[in-house]
Amino acid sequence: MGVDIGGSSIRAGLIPVESGPPVGWKVRSTPQSGDEDEVAAALAETVQSTLEAGRADRREAGAVRDTVVLGVGIGATGLVDGERGVLVENSRLGWTQMPLSDAVVSRTGLPCTLENDANAAALGEWWRGAGRGSKCLLCLTLGTGVGGGLVWAGQPFRGARGLACEMGHICIDPGGRQCGCGARGCLEAYVSGDAIAARAAEVIGPVGGGFGGTEGEEAGGGPIVLTARRVVRRARRGDPACKSLVQETGEVLGLGLASLISALNPDRVVVAGRVARAGDLLLAPSREVVRQRVMEPMRRGLEIVTGHLGNQAGSVGAAGAFLLAERQGEGIGALPEGPRVA
Amino acid sequence: MGVDIGGSSIRAGLIPVESGPPVGWKVRSTPQSGDEDEVAAALAETVQSTLEAGRADRREAGAVRDTVVLGVGIGATGLVDGERGVLVENSRLGWTQMPLSDAVVSRTGLPCTLENDANAAALGEWWRGAGRGSKCLLCLTLGTGVGGGLVWAGQPFRGARGLACEMGHICIDPGGRQCGCGARGCLEAYVSGDAIAARAAEVIGPVGGGFGGTEGEEAGGGPIVLTARRVVRRARRGDPACKSLVQETGEVLGLGLASLISALNPDRVVVAGRVARAGDLLLAPSREVVRQRVMEPMRRGLEIVTGHLGNQAGSVGAAGAFLLAERQGEGIGALPEGPRVA
Repeated sequence: MGVDIGGSSIRAGLIPVESGPPVGWKVRSTPQSGDEDEVAAALAETVQSTLEAGRADRREAGAVRDTVVLGVGIGATGLVDGERGVLVENSRLGWTQMPLSDAVVSRTGLPCTLENDANAAALGEWWRGAGRGSKCLLCLTLGTGVGGGLVWAGQPFRGARGLACEMGHICIDPGGRQCGCGARGCLEAYVSGDAIAARAAEVIGPVGGGFGGTEGEEAGGGPIVLTARRVVRRARRGDPACKSLVQETGEVLGLGLASLISALNPDRVVVAGRVARAGDLLLAPSREVVRQRVMEPMRRGLEIVTGHLGNQAGSVGAAGAFLLAERQGEGIGALPEGPRVA
Repeated sequence: MGVDIGGSSIRAGLIPVESGPPVGWKVRSTPQSGDEDEVAAALAETVQSTLEAGRADRREAGAVRDTVVLGVGIGATGLVDGERGVLVENSRLGWTQMPLSDAVVSRTGLPCTLENDANAAALGEWWRGAGRGSKCLLCLTLGTGVGGGLVWAGQPFRGARGLACEMGHICIDPGGRQCGCGARGCLEAYVSGDAIAARAAEVIGPVGGGFGGTEGEEAGGGPIVLTARRVVRRARRGDPACKSLVQETGEVLGLGLASLISALNPDRVVVAGRVARAGDLLLAPSREVVRQRVMEPMRRGLEIVTGHLGNQAGSVGAAGAFLLAERQGEGIGALPEGPRVA
């Protein structure tokens, strides 16, 4: 089972070991208090209900054998101590020293591992998604913020304390836009969902409602604040101001990717998250900047693509991290390879 | 034995497995032709003469047992295919598809491994130098250009094709100084020896000879071109213009390090090479920029220090890479730890 604990939602599913999509998929809200018992109860409840839903799904699909769950892999947002299974710190949620693995083990009896959520998402795309078959995968998730992950030699790169891959905070322009981290000119200050919405407010402003007559929440006709989701949707429909904003975003993303490609020599870059729904409107300008800035041998065989797993990448990768830890304990040291889907 | 093949010199020595400095140290010039036989002959001659010198050194030091050489580790500048033991490309030397490992094996009978020189230098500092005891070591060598290396989980991080760690080409300022790679604003365009000399020519210009009366080659009294070495030496002696140039270099280095620290979460950064001889004149401004730009959890326990092994780091690390490959083959998977020297 893979459990992805994000800032607002917990997503969980049973991930078949050999191949196939998650079953028994469950989404619930993340407890916003730092109370250990409340978090542990929510986690145990998620595991139990996912287990039941997964077993029911499999029975419905005609499975004859009983569903055996090997264990639970958690991917959690924040500073993670994988060895102790503790979420050390998530200042936004107000969680500190949260013993997530112990909560699962003591309340469900299932073995459990803990990984950072961005590392888990990268491992998920590498194992079952757009990163399959790559030797060195760099994954950037452009959501509210920017998450990063790196998979090399079949495992997530964690750095000294499991904090590696804060790719959102590499510097694009030392005197540039203010970032939430306190520094200026970080990649995140340009390409995250929040940053795109802020830039849209500056250069486009609120727009008239009912654009194209089909935008659901915009049908009322009043002025509309452009979220990143709306910017991407309008850009795809051909709105010139939104297209140009997405293009500029792609160029800045390309600057960041160029630095990361020179430093890390990936053979695949996966850009995921809701901003990546812009597809080539975003990635074509990125690829062009990478072509201009990165030395030729580093670009040979390199692909820059969008993610395949959407918001299931974290759960899939968290389950992969559990399986990887178990197999490393048995001296196997690699995940089973299912059929290539990418 | 460790052999470090650089653009101008080949340096080699016997590296004792448990501890101690290189013995039988040899330096010779690197063949500047791309002729395979000439390169193979030079390499074999280096191995033989290092072997003889090392044995003589040990006999003189009173060693009673015969010196047993386990094999040869090469660190070579350029694009390296470690699995085949081939230097794929070094455009500056005009070497292509150079079978370096085979040259050693066929001409000396010793087993041989091949690693990139910057990875080898990082592994050397991690194994025997300023990186000892770190979980994740980032090493930057500021010489003519900028070399980078990363050691994680006890082994060099190589990326997809062994090209990782071109840290000199992360972007500091997209509209900034022209870099030799063709792009603008790369770290290397500010902090390499060549870049410091170019910036000194722009902001200081040639200076009067005999500064301080003791500078050897400057005793003639005529106008002197400021090389990076001279800039560093003058800065250390208190020359205000050179101090200020070194300080600015440290600030730009800090910007680059801040991005790399966010992306990689090292617990130790080693800055080596001749520019690093400026010591804290260079590193104090770097540390200050890192303090301003990098989030606190990433900075906890992080040290930014100068290298310990000087121009022997590459040979020491190349020998370490050989030993590591041999021990991984035997399922040990780690280098022996000698007494802590750092």
